[in-house]
Amino acid sequence: MTTSEEHRAKKARIKAVKDRLYASKTREKGLILVHTGPGKGKTTAALGLVLRALGHGLRVGVVQFVKGRRETGERRFLERFSELVELKVMGEGFTWETQDLERDRRAARAAFAEARRMLTDPTLHLVVLDELNIVLRYDYLPVAEVVEALRSKRPELHVVITGRNAPEALIELADLVTEMKLVKHPFREGVRAQRGIEY
Amino acid sequence: MTTSEEHRAKKARIKAVKDRLYASKTREKGLILVHTGPGKGKTTAALGLVLRALGHGLRVGVVQFVKGRRETGERRFLERFSELVELKVMGEGFTWETQDLERDRRAARAAFAEARRMLTDPTLHLVVLDELNIVLRYDYLPVAEVVEALRSKRPELHVVITGRNAPEALIELADLVTEMKLVKHPFREGVRAQRGIEY
Repeated sequence: MTTSEEHRAKKARIKAVKDRLYASKTREKGLILVHTGPGKGKTTAALGLVLRALGHGLRVGVVQFVKGRRETGERRFLERFSELVELKVMGEGFTWETQDLERDRRAARAAFAEARRMLTDPTLHLVVLDELNIVLRYDYLPVAEVVEALRSKRPELHVVITGRNAPEALIELADLVTEMKLVKHPFREGVRAQRGIEY
Repeated sequence: MTTSEEHRAKKARIKAVKDRLYASKTREKGLILVHTGPGKGKTTAALGLVLRALGHGLRVGVVQFVKGRRETGERRFLERFSELVELKVMGEGFTWETQDLERDRRAARAAFAEARRMLTDPTLHLVVLDELNIVLRYDYLPVAEVVEALRSKRPELHVVITGRNAPEALIELADLVTEMKLVKHPFREGVRAQRGIEY
């Protein structure tokens, strides 16, 4: 165990490094964040950013590109904050059950039109493009068009894009990319998806 | 066997497999989740779980083991939901600025006492032990004691533990471990921490 003095010295060294680090970082800029990888937490971490923004009283936009369960905790929550949250769910959109390519493409395009509008909306602090990577992966939208829309976003706006298999062009464009890696998963041990955790 | 009979037999076999599969996935169990790794999103994803729980009208407890900035979005947000959120921040606790080992240990212990109480509180759906891994890493609390408290938690309760360098004993105990891996980080390019994103 460290003695008290060693401990103090170690902390002082860490603090000095942190101070130097923070002093050099003064640019305020809207970030493009990508949450990808096979692990849990991609959408969930985007929701955490929504919670932070709401805590500061800032407005957010959320486009859900994959229509999932109807009664998710996040949807109920976001609907409750309708004065600060603009929520668009791909109504007729992509689900794992549909088999109609043309319908899926139309739905993806309609959701993207909402996203594009939000990217220039001066009242928004943060836009979440939830599961956008999935529709890109299925070629429902051209990646180049999405990249172009992100490049022309309002400079101060933060954008979070979630979903597995983020395309290379988005990773290239992003300021911050986090890959969620699965270490252990309870489904492997026969536990089903739990309310208030997975949805 | 006629085609129609073959078809029926095949469907029956598939149904039997499905039934077995689903029968084995019915356990409702409180999960122990660990968010670790050097990437962003560990605390943020825990906040996303809080948002989901609140969307379902479920109560949550949050213990922040590392006292950070005072005016974080999450703290303001959680304080606003005081009827559903029990929030404990290590008041005199560990920060990167303090240099007093004994004081840090006392603060960690006090926060842990709150956590221990929450782990058996029947009104809570989810408990977040934010940055617990950090205080364990600094030996402010014995890992064995934390593991013991988690083992004796209320069985239905979900617990999320965040922080880099999760100790092996916690990874062993957890149902789900997600490692957040940094792919790109804007700090490297001189952008400072942003309100509504990093705090």
